Amino acid sequence: MVLEKVNGPEDLKRLSLEELQALAEEIRSEIIRVTAQNGGHLASSLGAVELILALHRVFHSPKDRILFDVGHQTYAHKLVTGRKDRFHTLRQEGGISGFTKVSESEHDAITAGHASTSLAHALGMAIARDLQGEDYHVVAVIGDGALTGGMALAALNKIGELQKRMLIILNDNEMSISENVGALNKYFKELQIRKWVHDMEKLGRNVLERISPQLFGLVDRAKEAAKLILHQENPFYAWGLRYIGPVDGHDLKGLVHILEHLKALEGPTLLHVVTQKGKGYKVAEADPIYWHGPPGFNPEKPEKVSKGYSWSQAFGDAVTELAHLEPRLFVITPAMREGSGLVRYSLEHPERYLDVGICEDVAVTTAAGLALRGMKPVVAIYSTFLQRAYDQVIHDVAIEALPVVFAIDRAGIVGADGATHHGVFDIAYLRTIPNLQIAAPKDALELRAMLKKALEVGGPVAIRYPRDNVERAPEGVWPDIPWGKWEVVKEGKEAYILAFGKTLRYALEAAGDDPRVGVVNARFLKPLDREMLRQLARYKLLTVEDHQRMGGFGSAVLEALNEMGLKPEVKVLGLPDRFFEHGTIPSLHRQAGIDPEGIRRALAEMGLAPVHERA
Amino acid sequence: MVLEKVNGPEDLKRLSLEELQALAEEIRSEIIRVTAQNGGHLASSLGAVELILALHRVFHSPKDRILFDVGHQTYAHKLVTGRKDRFHTLRQEGGISGFTKVSESEHDAITAGHASTSLAHALGMAIARDLQGEDYHVVAVIGDGALTGGMALAALNKIGELQKRMLIILNDNEMSISENVGALNKYFKELQIRKWVHDMEKLGRNVLERISPQLFGLVDRAKEAAKLILHQENPFYAWGLRYIGPVDGHDLKGLVHILEHLKALEGPTLLHVVTQKGKGYKVAEADPIYWHGPPGFNPEKPEKVSKGYSWSQAFGDAVTELAHLEPRLFVITPAMREGSGLVRYSLEHPERYLDVGICEDVAVTTAAGLALRGMKPVVAIYSTFLQRAYDQVIHDVAIEALPVVFAIDRAGIVGADGATHHGVFDIAYLRTIPNLQIAAPKDALELRAMLKKALEVGGPVAIRYPRDNVERAPEGVWPDIPWGKWEVVKEGKEAYILAFGKTLRYALEAAGDDPRVGVVNARFLKPLDREMLRQLARYKLLTVEDHQRMGGFGSAVLEALNEMGLKPEVKVLGLPDRFFEHGTIPSLHRQAGIDPEGIRRALAEMGLAPVHERA
Repeated sequence: MVLEKVNGPEDLKRLSLEELQALAEEIRSEIIRVTAQNGGHLASSLGAVELILALHRVFHSPKDRILFDVGHQTYAHKLVTGRKDRFHTLRQEGGISGFTKVSESEHDAITAGHASTSLAHALGMAIARDLQGEDYHVVAVIGDGALTGGMALAALNKIGELQKRMLIILNDNEMSISENVGALNKYFKELQIRKWVHDMEKLGRNVLERISPQLFGLVDRAKEAAKLILHQENPFYAWGLRYIGPVDGHDLKGLVHILEHLKALEGPTLLHVVTQKGKGYKVAEADPIYWHGPPGFNPEKPEKVSKGYSWSQAFGDAVTELAHLEPRLFVITPAMREGSGLVRYSLEHPERYLDVGICEDVAVTTAAGLALRGMKPVVAIYSTFLQRAYDQVIHDVAIEALPVVFAIDRAGIVGADGATHHGVFDIAYLRTIPNLQIAAPKDALELRAMLKKALEVGGPVAIRYPRDNVERAPEGVWPDIPWGKWEVVKEGKEAYILAFGKTLRYALEAAGDDPRVGVVNARFLKPLDREMLRQLARYKLLTVEDHQRMGGFGSAVLEALNEMGLKPEVKVLGLPDRFFEHGTIPSLHRQAGIDPEGIRRALAEMGLAPVHERA
Repeated sequence: MVLEKVNGPEDLKRLSLEELQALAEEIRSEIIRVTAQNGGHLASSLGAVELILALHRVFHSPKDRILFDVGHQTYAHKLVTGRKDRFHTLRQEGGISGFTKVSESEHDAITAGHASTSLAHALGMAIARDLQGEDYHVVAVIGDGALTGGMALAALNKIGELQKRMLIILNDNEMSISENVGALNKYFKELQIRKWVHDMEKLGRNVLERISPQLFGLVDRAKEAAKLILHQENPFYAWGLRYIGPVDGHDLKGLVHILEHLKALEGPTLLHVVTQKGKGYKVAEADPIYWHGPPGFNPEKPEKVSKGYSWSQAFGDAVTELAHLEPRLFVITPAMREGSGLVRYSLEHPERYLDVGICEDVAVTTAAGLALRGMKPVVAIYSTFLQRAYDQVIHDVAIEALPVVFAIDRAGIVGADGATHHGVFDIAYLRTIPNLQIAAPKDALELRAMLKKALEVGGPVAIRYPRDNVERAPEGVWPDIPWGKWEVVKEGKEAYILAFGKTLRYALEAAGDDPRVGVVNARFLKPLDREMLRQLARYKLLTVEDHQRMGGFGSAVLEALNEMGLKPEVKVLGLPDRFFEHGTIPSLHRQAGIDPEGIRRALAEMGLAPVHERA
């Protein structure tokens, strides 16, 4: 095993190219083995193996900074940077993260999880390096999907202007999580298809000046020439970048060779590398969308497994049916068709479906444009990604109270994806916005009711639901829901648990059959059901939410009670003021004290310990 | 007067081109006259007069939708779309907005204020139009600064892919508010300088297919040819857009002519128009940065006036001095050098200063990159624009607790810029983020103390200060500040006003010399001074903030009191749950009830009416 000899990236320099090649295959096996156990980002990590080995062979991490955009393609990087012994703990509580994380390893240059940040990071690092008179390399690896995110394009613009030395590697696999979209991607495709062989005779003086003698030596050699294209008039040229490519991202030898030459160049260079998602694992090559982030599987006999019926699918089914009833309905996703449960919708209503790519801000403002012209757009978005369109929610939707529905998936703790992905801020950042209504259903049927009603009530509505499975609701059923009204699910004599969304289940479990403890489905956060709250204020109140305690649902309850001049005993359960790492959702909920046990503990602190315990 | 005959855009169609030309001059005079009275966006509005007249001559608003990015260049548009009689109320309370506003006129296609939204809006509208089987035109006018904002670039990418019919007008004046930056802008400049005359012989088949016969007729005419450049290999081509330009944006006749022809084209077209900011008003042409948004002036004898010493300048002076003491300090602005008081800094520390352009997300993540490499970045940003980098604050800065200081200017009500610009959400959206500390100084000296300390304490710190003047603090003085500790400014026997930031002044005025009412400078919101709050809980408490009541400072106080099990009488003053339009800051504060009068009223409701009133 070559991997046994590799304890850090410097060890790669001692390997022969043949050993390096063998290492790539060993790493592939290891990635498949551990992902089969733990689940994880399989296809993208398989696609980046040779590229990562070539980078660590040529550059010197941690002195040189190698930044991986999104960070989910870095399993090979983790394996060769001292984490092979812990690799089996991937994405497990207390184990290593599924993304790069500064606090996990000195070789992780950035903490990532969301797309399109690496170029701005790289720019900051290159500036710092030059100011401090240091001379290390800054290398950013970014996918074609992430590169077309707005902040990556805007950073590219600045990088082209400042001309700091850095290497940007466009890892082009023609696919982000969903199928890729956007004009630039078509252009990349065009670049790939043409495969122009570089013609030295036609090189203008311009180009001659922009490339180094070393590179010329390389170009001159005929066998290299076929792999190398210098294309003057492309978008990267307009951006002031030296563009080289496309090259084969699975040709380890070729990659090492070209990276060695590129090291010597001044200014910003973009190397266009073509890779295949899932490379080396047939099922993943054939269906990279499913194998992007599968749950555990049998590596010998890989099969798609149903993950159960999720809230995402419940939303997808509901909105697909609704679109048959409401011809103005339109659904927008920022590159999350599969994750948001929209495959069925996109097939049944292709003309009223839009995937804008990885640009949440564009998703929201395009929805505003649709709403201004009489449509009823639904933006399907993860809580954590809606953070990227916060200003657009305020500026483009809420000010004019446009009828846009935000279907906020993955709200609350999300589990194995960890700190970058928990959707635990949305209540706080949304409830301060005027005109916006906020709700959370207790089950799939209530989700249907809320969605339908949201399209009718006018104005922007946010509906949040968790990353979890849920019982399937019957098709064709659209119960009416009294807008803004809470629901008493269980009567209580001394106290009421006010649960928002998913935590209702926990509350019911905690209350059990204790006649003293009632439970309320506090399904509307804005408007808050003040009428019911006033009545409940005669009892002790315990609020529970899968969200930061600061600024969340409990905080809204405290505000309302204070405004009404009511002072019941209130206890607020929610996430404490820290970031949670990855782990299972139940375990993280337990840590946060919002699980049934935590609720029972809180009840006990309020003098409502279970009767048998008091006995 | 031609303007007298113009009551709506259709009236422009009846004018001769000579009358249209005369109208342009009349409109310029009117813009100068009213801006001299009220202040406003003078230079950009002067630069867009001919373009706007040509658009309304050729297109049919409101059937056709004309979208103005940012919306501050639209004074001519307001004058010819039925608002000339109210134009003198520009930016005044109850008067017309300084931006386009959907609720103000059917001719305002979008509500704007922040940059780079128009293309996503236009995309949504074009999709809605085609779905509904309608045939109107969608025209977006976007400046070269706004076009290089990330969400505009990302929207362009999608527009190029979908090939919906729309006209994008790049209004290129080589300048956003500050001098423009970015590689694309250099490229635009290059396009301008070359002024290639279109050569019909060299037109490839490719290009022939992409333009219409009508346009060919136009091109064919020699006198037009010189104004028209079809440039195949430019970034817009890569984006799948038909590119035409650059053309003279002050040649009314030429503009009308080309727009008439462009109307017939299918798919997305980008017309590159070159205009001059401040056109027709010598002082504004000469110094378009000052005359971008001047306060009132004498139109006969226009002179720069000092607006007094602002919080922005106090920040700028402090950070300039600090950078002499702290070599790792680095300041980033998203295109707001002048507004953020950074002119002096940029001159004294050019190597540690970066204007990233209109991309707040890039500003924050570039700061993260700098911080990861040992620098101490300060992001100078308006509260309303930090909304655009919300995810980057969480994902790129707070998770790893990087030492980035956010100098949040224009926090609170900002006055004449209105609903799109009030910075009244930042406390709510920031305080829910772990690791982030939040403070607000009472005066310029305290701002200095906080800035210096913020660089020392580590981790991200947000310091918010208002749009207002402030007394100048002495140079070279850096008082120590006990981090996280509130300050009792006035003792009270029965009640305490807890004021966060600017409202301290109001609180002191309201308390006067009433011995019953104390005043606390609650300068740290996170960490909150729980120790002092516990002591103060023996009294009645009144919190005051220049921010939404929902989720703000008062809410944080309620949370803390509840956690400590304390139940004093608390009243929370802040902005009610609605958007405020434009008006003077004191007037809007009065409406919100957070001014001294409002505070006195609240005290009275708490049983603390002034003694003489009770007598």
